[in-house]
Amino acid sequence: MRSHAAVLHRPGEPLRVETIEVAPPAVGEALVEIVASGLCHTDTTTFDGDNPSCRYPAVLGHEGAGRVVEVGPEVAALRPGDHVIPLYGPECGTCGMCRSGRTNLCWTIKATRDRGVMPDGTSRFRLGGETVYHFMGTSTFSRYTVVPEIALARIRPDAPLESVCLLGCGVTTGVGAALDDVREGDTAVVFGLGGIGTNVVQGARIAGAKRIIGVDTVAAKRPLAERFGMTDFVDASAVEDVVDAVRDLSGGGADVAFECTGIVPVMRQAVDSCTVGWGTCVLLGVEPTGSELSFPPVRARYGRTIKGSYFGGVKGRSGIGRFVDLYVEGVLDIDSQITHRAPLTDINAGFDRMARGEGVRTVVTLG
Amino acid sequence: MRSHAAVLHRPGEPLRVETIEVAPPAVGEALVEIVASGLCHTDTTTFDGDNPSCRYPAVLGHEGAGRVVEVGPEVAALRPGDHVIPLYGPECGTCGMCRSGRTNLCWTIKATRDRGVMPDGTSRFRLGGETVYHFMGTSTFSRYTVVPEIALARIRPDAPLESVCLLGCGVTTGVGAALDDVREGDTAVVFGLGGIGTNVVQGARIAGAKRIIGVDTVAAKRPLAERFGMTDFVDASAVEDVVDAVRDLSGGGADVAFECTGIVPVMRQAVDSCTVGWGTCVLLGVEPTGSELSFPPVRARYGRTIKGSYFGGVKGRSGIGRFVDLYVEGVLDIDSQITHRAPLTDINAGFDRMARGEGVRTVVTLG
Repeated sequence: MRSHAAVLHRPGEPLRVETIEVAPPAVGEALVEIVASGLCHTDTTTFDGDNPSCRYPAVLGHEGAGRVVEVGPEVAALRPGDHVIPLYGPECGTCGMCRSGRTNLCWTIKATRDRGVMPDGTSRFRLGGETVYHFMGTSTFSRYTVVPEIALARIRPDAPLESVCLLGCGVTTGVGAALDDVREGDTAVVFGLGGIGTNVVQGARIAGAKRIIGVDTVAAKRPLAERFGMTDFVDASAVEDVVDAVRDLSGGGADVAFECTGIVPVMRQAVDSCTVGWGTCVLLGVEPTGSELSFPPVRARYGRTIKGSYFGGVKGRSGIGRFVDLYVEGVLDIDSQITHRAPLTDINAGFDRMARGEGVRTVVTLG
Repeated sequence: MRSHAAVLHRPGEPLRVETIEVAPPAVGEALVEIVASGLCHTDTTTFDGDNPSCRYPAVLGHEGAGRVVEVGPEVAALRPGDHVIPLYGPECGTCGMCRSGRTNLCWTIKATRDRGVMPDGTSRFRLGGETVYHFMGTSTFSRYTVVPEIALARIRPDAPLESVCLLGCGVTTGVGAALDDVREGDTAVVFGLGGIGTNVVQGARIAGAKRIIGVDTVAAKRPLAERFGMTDFVDASAVEDVVDAVRDLSGGGADVAFECTGIVPVMRQAVDSCTVGWGTCVLLGVEPTGSELSFPPVRARYGRTIKGSYFGGVKGRSGIGRFVDLYVEGVLDIDSQITHRAPLTDINAGFDRMARGEGVRTVVTLG
């Protein structure tokens, strides 16, 4: 099958929208027609060659939604026409991690995913006789893509795919983390008000936080964060000491701090912003490969916890439906955060907007 | 009142057992006759002058048990004759921390405690006209000591004070931490098999751990740890890589790791020994002032949690009774870990044994 797709041939180049060949789904896989896909920061980590899980040339994209077109052999729970959200974190349901009841991680197909291929070790994409690789197991910047069944969450058919595509990464990651760690009446602080942080703000509001402090260097991000529930804004480019500012606003320290920038010194600010006794620092941002966060261990002995969150702590296939419901019920606001919609052919302009750091959010439409 | 007490006059000197003057209890305080007191590692942090909370000359000791002799004005809940365990971490019951329901810390009198004085800013100890200071608010190396009521846990009178004195620090710290974070069937690893680590082993056994791995450089500590429930021993001085050894024994990583040495590189081993997905690293050991622990944030994003524990997460006045009960019922073994009993006059020999790192545990008898 032929498909339009945005291909990154090698680091340093722009994406090229080309017509690739998509092979039929193999055992346990499904062919999916992607309707819409968000542009997310993780895609950009491939632009300079620093993402070890990207094999070039690659079809990027990991925040999409679409419809099943065809299923391969031994696919049990999906049928053509099903609405689905591809998952970079699958849920096989049978491995030790899935059965543990203690994590949403499932590493059943991590090894092949991180080499840009399907579980059988091969790619479904070709271009002019050359192999093109998958990215994050999803490759949602292609009108047609192939995804393993265990990495496809079937969702209710009345949810608009053009909006719920963002549940494939940013919205779920942010809202889920907040729902896990914010208690009613808490003071929460969110470092970084981009695609993830904005949704942490929204999740903290849904969880009943009394006060939600946002921290960013870009004041232009303030209106959307306020719309989503932020009560106080700290302009990190204007205050002398961010930690002091958060402590002042929170009466000594936040109950919970979320780090959504991946900048290691900001992670340390998040740790230091937590209250003694029970403050919890949740790391969401992805640091540069190999870098480390340091902190005085007494922070922990005096009651602080450092933890992380991956995809909002949500098991993709069994847990994402709750978020779709919250959107359909009007509790979760996805549409306000989509600032630009564009055809796939304009994808580079979308990434250029993102690189300018204005907190914009682009969704490309496939097909 | 005159009292025998072990006084540390200045860093670098041995303790001197002298007869000090103990003033009557002031408002909210009680005079306590100490029956027995354990020698604990934290006392030794004063020996070289590095403990900023020690003001010299000081009466050390923070792991004691005794009887109330006299109460000062406005003492509501204690009477002469009550059996008590002095607490370096008080429980006032009325401050924000106590009322939070989220921590066992209470900092109501921390500022004065850390300056070696009672809450009114003065000391109750004098020697030859000179002021002698309190240490950790407890000073249990004196036959008679004065302690604020909010830092005295009343316990059942049938529990032998010569044994339950260790609930004032080491036993509660270790057992409490394990009871908080070990689930039935877990694999736990304990770094450092001293006074704290041995009790973490015991607590992990009580909590139902399936496998309990102990790590130490001193193989002589193995028998007691095995008696307390350790199933596997890693001799850190003999294996090439401690983390690899723990991963091998635990099938990829421990469910929970406890760090009981305070050595920062060992803390990192504890972090690295935790399983992906849900591994929890609990820091108990006290690091050198100002040092920091570093780790790759991806450890947290992939499901690991770093937290700490202070006094086993136990609220002293309301929570210690549970541990006394466990001892009286024969579930908790305190006596096997006491290798030496000695009069107060032999206290320096006890600290010398401890300095040789043999995992011995000395209890001095007062009076």
